[in-house]
Amino acid sequence: MARTSVKVWAPATVANVAVGYDILGFAIDGPGDEILLKRGTSKGLKIVEITGAKGKLPLDPMKNTAGVAAIKLLESLGAEDEPLEMSIRKKMPFGSGLGSSAASAVGGVFAVNELLKTGLSKREILRFAVEGEKVADGAWHADNVAPSLLGGMTFIRDNETLDVHKIYVPKGIQIVVIYPEVEVLTKDSRAVLSDSIQLNQHILQSGNLGGFIIGMYNSDFELIKRSLNDVIIEPQRAALIPSFSKMKEAALSHGALGFSISGAGPSMFAFCNNTYVAEKIVGSAEQIYGDQKIKVKTFQSGINNEGAFLF
Amino acid sequence: MARTSVKVWAPATVANVAVGYDILGFAIDGPGDEILLKRGTSKGLKIVEITGAKGKLPLDPMKNTAGVAAIKLLESLGAEDEPLEMSIRKKMPFGSGLGSSAASAVGGVFAVNELLKTGLSKREILRFAVEGEKVADGAWHADNVAPSLLGGMTFIRDNETLDVHKIYVPKGIQIVVIYPEVEVLTKDSRAVLSDSIQLNQHILQSGNLGGFIIGMYNSDFELIKRSLNDVIIEPQRAALIPSFSKMKEAALSHGALGFSISGAGPSMFAFCNNTYVAEKIVGSAEQIYGDQKIKVKTFQSGINNEGAFLF
Repeated sequence: MARTSVKVWAPATVANVAVGYDILGFAIDGPGDEILLKRGTSKGLKIVEITGAKGKLPLDPMKNTAGVAAIKLLESLGAEDEPLEMSIRKKMPFGSGLGSSAASAVGGVFAVNELLKTGLSKREILRFAVEGEKVADGAWHADNVAPSLLGGMTFIRDNETLDVHKIYVPKGIQIVVIYPEVEVLTKDSRAVLSDSIQLNQHILQSGNLGGFIIGMYNSDFELIKRSLNDVIIEPQRAALIPSFSKMKEAALSHGALGFSISGAGPSMFAFCNNTYVAEKIVGSAEQIYGDQKIKVKTFQSGINNEGAFLF
Repeated sequence: MARTSVKVWAPATVANVAVGYDILGFAIDGPGDEILLKRGTSKGLKIVEITGAKGKLPLDPMKNTAGVAAIKLLESLGAEDEPLEMSIRKKMPFGSGLGSSAASAVGGVFAVNELLKTGLSKREILRFAVEGEKVADGAWHADNVAPSLLGGMTFIRDNETLDVHKIYVPKGIQIVVIYPEVEVLTKDSRAVLSDSIQLNQHILQSGNLGGFIIGMYNSDFELIKRSLNDVIIEPQRAALIPSFSKMKEAALSHGALGFSISGAGPSMFAFCNNTYVAEKIVGSAEQIYGDQKIKVKTFQSGINNEGAFLF
């Protein structure tokens, strides 16, 4: 029986993860995009409603990451005239460094895939989601899109060919995401980065990346802790985020395995191995930003291993 | 009962391994250093004989990597006056990019450790071997010393603190080492390297390093193959090695998973997943260098998982 409507969820994500700029990311529980897709009456895909975005996201499907991702899949199926109506319900902050545009792209393409029962796997629709995401920042990269769609901790060997792999996640990993409600534009966040780095920085960061992956496979939390140290990106971006150092110091003093910037910021994440530490960090975040009268949202969750799903 | 003499072996090693400059290395079977250590009659450590080095290595223990590594351990034990006589039998080429100075350093310190039955583990004597190796090239790095001592495929998260880890090696990995007998000085090989790299090169190389580690843990030979691609060091050094491109092309066409420079060269290595491919590469090496009247030595082996051992 053909479906007449679907409701899907695409989770928010943390990209870069301190040691994997452009190649590492993971999905979390809690924030994300809910997308409702219905068969409509007039030709082609329309975005009929966007909630939770304060009117800041375009209804024009060709300018919206959810719309573009959906249309790219429809075109590949020769189904671009299929009458479809999409409602996007943002249940996460955007411009926050939590992969908002990626969650929309994933939700859009995943909803079409489920409504039309194409039989395509998540891996097969990944590239359409990346095309959607590209509308937001002009770059072809899957570090938010891949974990939002596939779930888990994803490692991208190569963005160009979407050579994406899930890294084993040891039991007990807890994430705290801290979003201070200040605006950091992705273009500013990209602009502060130098195009070149020292060979020695590359060696140190590669050591930390490898140590992180080995630590994950071996459930070696001490190794993960020694590894989660960004010597390249974080030092350049930290100044864009209010009280970054203070927040990091608090998180590490509570026992976090690592603390760094989520994507382009201003969100930050703490990587923990139990809920006890995670909860203390949430408390510190509320106090540190409360003292400064900066609104803050916190999310605490495990690593979401499922990715996008059909309700 | 106290020992009066020991004979130990320290294997040759391949460092860098295409995607882990200064942080990745593995040990091989075949070439290496044999070190004989006896109780002597006069105070302190003497190097009484070096064979297989054509008179090019110093007998002065303070200038010889084996001597320095041994003495650093003896000093830490307060045993620097112990009368000891060391014979070094090089059963591997030196100046070849196969970690000759590291094998000597490892053999020297391991021989002392075994003769004196200190009870120290290999991990505990690693730093003395690194101090010995430092005599040869002035730098503190363990990418040859660690695999020669510990065996296996070793990953160094951090050279400074010797945070060293063994990476799981899937069954069936075969290595071919090809040593064309031309001189490439390590200092020249270091001098051609630029101090800085593009951020994008770092992203690509990090993707390949992570892909390699994940491929090893998952025995995913196709992923290993896509990953063993050096975009930073090899392009700068390949020109120092005669017929590098021709040899690489031959190895890959036979089915090697990867092919690159061993350490600072001129040796090269092919990373294979069976002996059939490995043997074909040996044949091509003999033909390619034979045609050019360049003497070549080849070594074919699995990855040596044991490292230094007592005969």
